[in-house]
Amino acid sequence: MAKLYFRYSAMNAGKSTTLLQIAYNYEEQGQRVMLFTAAIDDRSGAGCIASRLGLQRQASVFDDRTDFLELLASETSLACVLIDESQFLSTRQVRQLHQLANVHNLPVICFGIRSDFQGKAFPGSAELLTLAEDIEEIKTICGCGRKATMNIRIDEYGQRVHAGAQVVIGGNNRYQQVCARCFYQGEA
Amino acid sequence: MAKLYFRYSAMNAGKSTTLLQIAYNYEEQGQRVMLFTAAIDDRSGAGCIASRLGLQRQASVFDDRTDFLELLASETSLACVLIDESQFLSTRQVRQLHQLANVHNLPVICFGIRSDFQGKAFPGSAELLTLAEDIEEIKTICGCGRKATMNIRIDEYGQRVHAGAQVVIGGNNRYQQVCARCFYQGEA
Amino acid sequence: MAKLYFRYSAMNAGKSTTLLQIAYNYEEQGQRVMLFTAAIDDRSGAGCIASRLGLQRQASVFDDRTDFLELLASETSLACVLIDESQFLSTRQVRQLHQLANVHNLPVICFGIRSDFQGKAFPGSAELLTLAEDIEEIKTICGCGRKATMNIRIDEYGQRVHAGAQVVIGGNNRYQQVCARCFYQGEA
Amino acid sequence: MAKLYFRYSAMNAGKSTTLLQIAYNYEEQGQRVMLFTAAIDDRSGAGCIASRLGLQRQASVFDDRTDFLELLASETSLACVLIDESQFLSTRQVRQLHQLANVHNLPVICFGIRSDFQGKAFPGSAELLTLAEDIEEIKTICGCGRKATMNIRIDEYGQRVHAGAQVVIGGNNRYQQVCARCFYQGEA
Repeated sequence: MAKLYFRYSAMNAGKSTTLLQIAYNYEEQGQRVMLFTAAIDDRSGAGCIASRLGLQRQASVFDDRTDFLELLASETSLACVLIDESQFLSTRQVRQLHQLANVHNLPVICFGIRSDFQGKAFPGSAELLTLAEDIEEIKTICGCGRKATMNIRIDEYGQRVHAGAQVVIGGNNRYQQVCARCFYQGEA
Repeated sequence: MAKLYFRYSAMNAGKSTTLLQIAYNYEEQGQRVMLFTAAIDDRSGAGCIASRLGLQRQASVFDDRTDFLELLASETSLACVLIDESQFLSTRQVRQLHQLANVHNLPVICFGIRSDFQGKAFPGSAELLTLAEDIEEIKTICGCGRKATMNIRIDEYGQRVHAGAQVVIGGNNRYQQVCARCFYQGEA
Repeated sequence: MAKLYFRYSAMNAGKSTTLLQIAYNYEEQGQRVMLFTAAIDDRSGAGCIASRLGLQRQASVFDDRTDFLELLASETSLACVLIDESQFLSTRQVRQLHQLANVHNLPVICFGIRSDFQGKAFPGSAELLTLAEDIEEIKTICGCGRKATMNIRIDEYGQRVHAGAQVVIGGNNRYQQVCARCFYQGEA
Repeated sequence: MAKLYFRYSAMNAGKSTTLLQIAYNYEEQGQRVMLFTAAIDDRSGAGCIASRLGLQRQASVFDDRTDFLELLASETSLACVLIDESQFLSTRQVRQLHQLANVHNLPVICFGIRSDFQGKAFPGSAELLTLAEDIEEIKTICGCGRKATMNIRIDEYGQRVHAGAQVVIGGNNRYQQVCARCFYQGEA
């Protein structure tokens, strides 16, 4: 029986690289995979999964209206579905992917950021953490040397931002992964 | 630096047994631990952590008003805090425990059920899955032999219940852990 | 398809407790399991799996002559085989257990100590680490507060022993789990 | 305190890709890393770590005579040591790397293949599995769809080879990762 997998991390851990490697591994075995990324994230062009190491590849896009059961439940030639930026999935969509794996026997591997710049869950990631049969962290490091598990937002002047909308793609904000100790610095 | 740990599972996996073993391991080394369980769960008497294997032990109780920072931030002789039934923690309390570990350097190990009888997250577990530095599943099995990751509620007549309040301690309901395939049986 | 599982740890982590919990979980579902422990380890009486928490249960014993394929390959009513003290398995026996899982579809869960008082592998554990499809550590702590991954031997006068046979059951030696930093103290 | 990490897998899982990603993550934070690969593996040129995805990078080489303590114990500006093809390390060298992490506080992350074409341990991997504080599998798939954990050797005529030397770099042999069920096909 297939499973729903969730690979979570802070920013800049190498999620897209890992996704592209798994796609390669399947295809090298002559098996067909399907790749998705969020329409909202068009930093590298719509529907492009790009790794900081320089790898990139076109993918299908999903937005709020994507119905994964309608799209994939009758697929028979697919070995695996790979979804990048899955923090942007809705809870309904994660439930669909959970059913694709466990009712329709199609493995689904999702990659996503766990929490936002305020340490609050992204809805897609919270639902994936609640339902996935297999959860693993992709590790990366904080500037202080500890494992980074959180993210902070920095404005155009290099100052940390504590308030604002959860998602601001582009704009003048930048993000940086940090450990929890550095995240709480100045608080608590 | 200390961490916040979350050990999640479906019902009947052995969470309390594992918690009591870890407490024993610390105390055998001459180190002091503090145990908590939810006031709401008084099946074995208020403040009793009881394992299906027959082990049991008194613990402090927490409810919505418990302020873990106030209670523990100035503790200096404690090696570890162990919390059972942590699905009943509020998101604010999980944030406090996260700070206890990462700001006040006190390791906190939480045990809890991941999702309710409808497959929805318990608030405490969702927040722990979002913030914990170390997440592991305690595995148990479904009647069909697969790994159980979900729970179903069964009424006094042995029928599965699909609607109702998230938490009903006591009453005539019973719970049973199942795999996702068995959970969706009859749906999708 | 079944798997070969290996749960390893240093001394005094709670391996037997976890084994007994899993046996309980299976039997509570009406499924039959079979328990083994090493004949060589008769501290609690031959064929007794005993936990420091006070739990205990009779088990079959294995020694060098036990042929697990002959014994179990034609079993049809068994849901799982659980083996304690599996550091004492021979490499041939681990290979048999690997085939039981992957050819005969019988899940096998082994518990064992990873390395001896000199930091050298136990043959059974080395082979399990090489073949098992699923490996997890059962964590315990060193007196210094770090995770213990190694073991040291202490003689009747409380002095650490650096040389001797790999296995001395009983006698006046005692063992203590330590982290690698404490293990190397005085060396390197 | 630093740790010794071991990331193991069957052939063709993406070990080198993951290693290069981690090096990138450190350097992006302004931290210095040092990369090693085995002198014996000169498929991509001596001292080149090359990923099947097309990434590659020069690394220092190690052979039987490399003394890692002599080389690295007095390093003070290094954040991490990354070692590819670590199945070719000697047991003595793994012990040195274990001391570098736990005595000299330098994190060491090793990548290697777990077992050879006969399912026997590589010495370096066996020792890493015995000593590493943190062990994770990098997963890949068998042609049958299950997780691949073993490797088989295939000769120039496409026939599986069951006997021969453990290591034959180049030559007309090829390797293929398989699950244990496919590995035992025709045996047992």
